[in-house]
Amino acid sequence: MFERHGATTVPSGQQETIITYQLDDRVLVDRFTESSMRHFAESVLRALGANDEEARINADGVVTASLWWHPGQGQGFEKLFRYARRMRNGGIRPDASMRWVREGVATALLDAGKGLGYVAARRAMDRAIEMAGAAGVAMVAVRHSNHFGIAGYHARRAAEAGLIGIAMTNAGAEMAPWGSARPVLGTNPWGIAVPRGDGRDPIILDMALTQSGKGMMRWLQRAGLAMPDHWALTPDGARTTDPQAAMDGPMLPIGDYKGYGLSLVTDILTGVLTGSLFGGQVFQDDLDYDVAHTMIAVSTDAFMPRARFEERLEALIAEVLTAPPIDPDRRVQLPGEAEQRRARRRLQRGVPVDRKTVAGLRELAADLGVAFSLRPVQDAG
Amino acid sequence: MFERHGATTVPSGQQETIITYQLDDRVLVDRFTESSMRHFAESVLRALGANDEEARINADGVVTASLWWHPGQGQGFEKLFRYARRMRNGGIRPDASMRWVREGVATALLDAGKGLGYVAARRAMDRAIEMAGAAGVAMVAVRHSNHFGIAGYHARRAAEAGLIGIAMTNAGAEMAPWGSARPVLGTNPWGIAVPRGDGRDPIILDMALTQSGKGMMRWLQRAGLAMPDHWALTPDGARTTDPQAAMDGPMLPIGDYKGYGLSLVTDILTGVLTGSLFGGQVFQDDLDYDVAHTMIAVSTDAFMPRARFEERLEALIAEVLTAPPIDPDRRVQLPGEAEQRRARRRLQRGVPVDRKTVAGLRELAADLGVAFSLRPVQDAG
Repeated sequence: MFERHGATTVPSGQQETIITYQLDDRVLVDRFTESSMRHFAESVLRALGANDEEARINADGVVTASLWWHPGQGQGFEKLFRYARRMRNGGIRPDASMRWVREGVATALLDAGKGLGYVAARRAMDRAIEMAGAAGVAMVAVRHSNHFGIAGYHARRAAEAGLIGIAMTNAGAEMAPWGSARPVLGTNPWGIAVPRGDGRDPIILDMALTQSGKGMMRWLQRAGLAMPDHWALTPDGARTTDPQAAMDGPMLPIGDYKGYGLSLVTDILTGVLTGSLFGGQVFQDDLDYDVAHTMIAVSTDAFMPRARFEERLEALIAEVLTAPPIDPDRRVQLPGEAEQRRARRRLQRGVPVDRKTVAGLRELAADLGVAFSLRPVQDAG
Repeated sequence: MFERHGATTVPSGQQETIITYQLDDRVLVDRFTESSMRHFAESVLRALGANDEEARINADGVVTASLWWHPGQGQGFEKLFRYARRMRNGGIRPDASMRWVREGVATALLDAGKGLGYVAARRAMDRAIEMAGAAGVAMVAVRHSNHFGIAGYHARRAAEAGLIGIAMTNAGAEMAPWGSARPVLGTNPWGIAVPRGDGRDPIILDMALTQSGKGMMRWLQRAGLAMPDHWALTPDGARTTDPQAAMDGPMLPIGDYKGYGLSLVTDILTGVLTGSLFGGQVFQDDLDYDVAHTMIAVSTDAFMPRARFEERLEALIAEVLTAPPIDPDRRVQLPGEAEQRRARRRLQRGVPVDRKTVAGLRELAADLGVAFSLRPVQDAG
């Protein structure tokens, strides 16, 4: 049933890319205009109690995820159901009163008051950007928050302001300490964004600290493909290439024990340092995830003139991008390049939403008394 | 000749550990007192032109490496030969005039003037610690430097001062951009250290951004063992489990494309941002490596009272350390725990130096007119 994947010719990350690229074809989708998606998401969030600013920020987050990634990957419009459920059960407080509990020269701590994670993280990054403008570097953390969405989205905020941004969060336990099979640490994703000159897309690295994710394992399983043996363990801690056998086991960290260390340190820089939950406790109680995030912004101006930084950055990028590809049809790409190119294409041709999600959104809209205002894109032919 | 390693039972990182633990037995070593090694290294460095402070710091670095790691892993006393060669050919300038070229509120840039990397990095971290004491966080970078030794060593400096420390450097090209087989980026190691209360050893994560290293591949090769297929590629870009076939190919990054992104971003935060070399150019010219480092220090006091941070940190550590081990004989460890335990044992029982290195050090001492003052430890039996 499971064959060893073609490991000698297809690097596992490329295999992953190939599979995710096929999602558009495998899932039945409808395509909507980006503006109608933004408007609809805002209406839904407002109906759930979010104020205008919260609705705008959170809608931007799920629209961006839908632009960057594939329907069914779990970060796009399908996330609205979870937000709705938790805004209704009190796990997420709309119109939350967030407050700054500590403020230093180049650091600050925001208490998110169980508010929307996208909103809290955005405010923290904005504060870090402002502080780094004066201090050169700043680190702003958030406690008592919720799922913050895409790490790379928050890092990009800094790049849009011309700074280097780093965003990280803790998350529910899916990774075991190295040598154990008991999940204690989260995938604890990092986003790092670097601004480029002349209106070019920023570099956006967005990565969980696990080698892969359960969603990707499910795709391989359905496709009858084996997975690389460094993705996940069985619940007993055995290596396996069978996605099914590892579905209830721990995800393996990037770089084996290295990713374990990085995830541990991330939990310290977020959960431990802020006063939120950490380890196996965070993200467990549907009524109180109590997540923590940490944002770092770096002003390149503190180190060299802007024009010189941009020139040097482009020299490095040119060296990277001209490295000859192993597969002549797949040139080297920058982190975030595929996502941003995909986003531009979808802005023109419509943003795919899988039909199951669309049906659910119709129900949700009816339930909330909100007009179902997603506008399909006419196929330009 | 090469068998697939027992991937279903032995996680590759543990295999690595087993192999490195065997190095002490495989290599013929002599054991010396730590104090005599420190004194000897200082004498050698002074004879090569280093001033007292430089000799003290750089000796501490190579002694620490000898305490933490295994003879033959390349970072310990055997590094003295390279320092000697390059201090003689002008690649490293002893008694270098280092100068602060930029100073902000929470950032600074040190021009190392081709001086010793250990010394430049130490000064940068000390400055970051000082600045973070006032600003909460600080980032201090170094340009025109040399090999800085152990990333975790520099991070530990912050932990010793009670702060969280991050140290990173760029390095010679050994990693290809994802999808290519041409090395353009370095292993670009990171060290992250977190202080613990009550005199406990800090957490010290020390990791290159490649899955493994050429040295480890050579050990597997000599032992007739296969390597995991995500360690390195052949020069043509094919996956392989044969260490020999990949010896001239690129090392693979941790987490596949994720580690590529992290290495790229590290080169931006070090080489690009400081004015040093980057990409395929850094570390190539024996007369001018032109390496860059970046140090970040975070004061936990900026986020919560010290006692509370320590209490919360110990709660997370307890959760991690009590996760049941897959192999009952191998309990879960913290990053840096094995190294620091090994160091304590060696302080008592002597520090191993392989005999080939000892012979070379005798020659070097004679050549420099320095007494060969390494004092063997009498086996306590």
